[in-house]
Amino acid sequence: MPKESEIIALIRKRARHTEQVAVGIGDDAAVIKSTGATDLLACSDLSVEGVHFRIEWSEARLIGRKSLAVTLSDVAAMGGAARYAMISVALPATLSSEFIDQLFEGFFDIADRYGVSIIGGDTSSSAHGLFIDTTVIGEAQTGRAVTRAGAREGDLIYVTGRLGASALGLNLLQQGYRLNGLEHRARREALMKHLEPEPRMEAGLAIGESGIATAMIDISDGLTTDLRHILDESGCGAIIRAHDIPVAGCVETLLPGRAFDLALHGGEEYELLFTAPTDFRAKIEELSTSASIPITLIGEITAGKDLQLERDGLFELVQPSGYEHFG
Amino acid sequence: MPKESEIIALIRKRARHTEQVAVGIGDDAAVIKSTGATDLLACSDLSVEGVHFRIEWSEARLIGRKSLAVTLSDVAAMGGAARYAMISVALPATLSSEFIDQLFEGFFDIADRYGVSIIGGDTSSSAHGLFIDTTVIGEAQTGRAVTRAGAREGDLIYVTGRLGASALGLNLLQQGYRLNGLEHRARREALMKHLEPEPRMEAGLAIGESGIATAMIDISDGLTTDLRHILDESGCGAIIRAHDIPVAGCVETLLPGRAFDLALHGGEEYELLFTAPTDFRAKIEELSTSASIPITLIGEITAGKDLQLERDGLFELVQPSGYEHFG
Repeated sequence: MPKESEIIALIRKRARHTEQVAVGIGDDAAVIKSTGATDLLACSDLSVEGVHFRIEWSEARLIGRKSLAVTLSDVAAMGGAARYAMISVALPATLSSEFIDQLFEGFFDIADRYGVSIIGGDTSSSAHGLFIDTTVIGEAQTGRAVTRAGAREGDLIYVTGRLGASALGLNLLQQGYRLNGLEHRARREALMKHLEPEPRMEAGLAIGESGIATAMIDISDGLTTDLRHILDESGCGAIIRAHDIPVAGCVETLLPGRAFDLALHGGEEYELLFTAPTDFRAKIEELSTSASIPITLIGEITAGKDLQLERDGLFELVQPSGYEHFG
Repeated sequence: MPKESEIIALIRKRARHTEQVAVGIGDDAAVIKSTGATDLLACSDLSVEGVHFRIEWSEARLIGRKSLAVTLSDVAAMGGAARYAMISVALPATLSSEFIDQLFEGFFDIADRYGVSIIGGDTSSSAHGLFIDTTVIGEAQTGRAVTRAGAREGDLIYVTGRLGASALGLNLLQQGYRLNGLEHRARREALMKHLEPEPRMEAGLAIGESGIATAMIDISDGLTTDLRHILDESGCGAIIRAHDIPVAGCVETLLPGRAFDLALHGGEEYELLFTAPTDFRAKIEELSTSASIPITLIGEITAGKDLQLERDGLFELVQPSGYEHFG
């Protein structure tokens, strides 16, 4: 394993940043020129070996990429744009230089893709296991960040993308399937959704800037659990319709009998779940078309507190099953 | 161990924040109202069990406190004020609820002390060992953040406080001394400096706002190593005078033979090391008096690249010994 100073020198060399960054990696703190024209967003996510990922199930680059992707996704879920990231990694001595290089390539890959400057962080040795903490600072139009707390009775509930593939991917990994050499298309699609999720940065920003959403969250714990978070914070209930939940094609193909359950409860989707007044229905359809992202109407916000599922005319109360990481 | 949702609920209840924080803990990201009147500072520090601390050597509250203190210290070293913190912790299942409560009490203790709002973070389980990553966002007057890169030939070199006690404290811990029941004053002082370091927030801010410093760093790796960082970034050399290095009283008492070495090379001091033009000599003496903090002139910046130590009229080249964490 390279020395900490060598790792930092490499990162520093590789880091590119916008001219808003007055001081980047290598000082006591990064310095960001602030214009005051926007509100700041700030969030962190831990990725822990054995809890959030297994090294033997993935690739170093994908582990780095995903550990930053999930935090970027939080900024998307506020309707903002991600700008700066800080990456802290505790590295076991067993990791090779190649692994560490690829891990950081993963951070830089996704940072570059979304115009995010990596401005700091920390590295340390670790006696056991790889630990990654990513912090992202973003911007939202002043007063326009979309929280979980603004849903109101009568609002419609929307979700981006199609659901269930990430949970299926995890299931396949547990069965022993690996990306390497995997040619079966549906299985590959499920594994990729789990190992290389794409945060909905453009959609999140477009939703935030258009001012259409009253509440928004990204699906990390599962559709029902994350909708429950919106309902709890907003003080309302909801009805969602079983036949409208968008299920990922690979899930329909591989697990038709459990497809709906996976879509309803599977976590780590990093799709956006949001609510909007009925007036914006046409606007949301336009946004879906112009951004080439499926955005599906799945239900509506109600009075009371209950989350109900309507299936073939029957209503059942949904208890969020609470997706658990495998650790 | 309590569930993650219970831990977050407790933290959320305990967190206080200023009115600049539009959204605190509990959403996808925190939202900070930005005025644009200042530059932003951002930094992170990892504290890893077995590398940066040992649970059996300290107390949960002090572990939490120190892991945030060291990151606050980075903001002080930029001449800024700390405003917001994000705390990520990966917790082994072996930790008790009381331990976790006390750990968070430590974070909140020091955050409250310096007017810092804890606005986010993440929690996770950990298969092995306690991992803490703290991120601090601060502010500095526009264009006035003090980097490591501004030292110029002829500048004087200053350090706050007295040095060597933290390294001595670590040495005593390794010998088996513990805080609990320890009455010997000098030993207790050394252990406290190591386990409960006080970041120089007021001094750092005063130095930053007065515009006197050309470069600044906090001493985490040791006086010589951290001065070397300033010299490398600024492209210059320095002479420091052995007889002027301020040595902590407890080190003089307990280890007179090695006191000077500990002061010169001991890490984790979290004192500020800075350079300033000679014109500001009187102003710095005033600042030392008004803030009741010893600020000692220890040498000056030279042309070239060398770091030299003058002792009894003889000059020796200093190779930074590079303080290593014990892990």
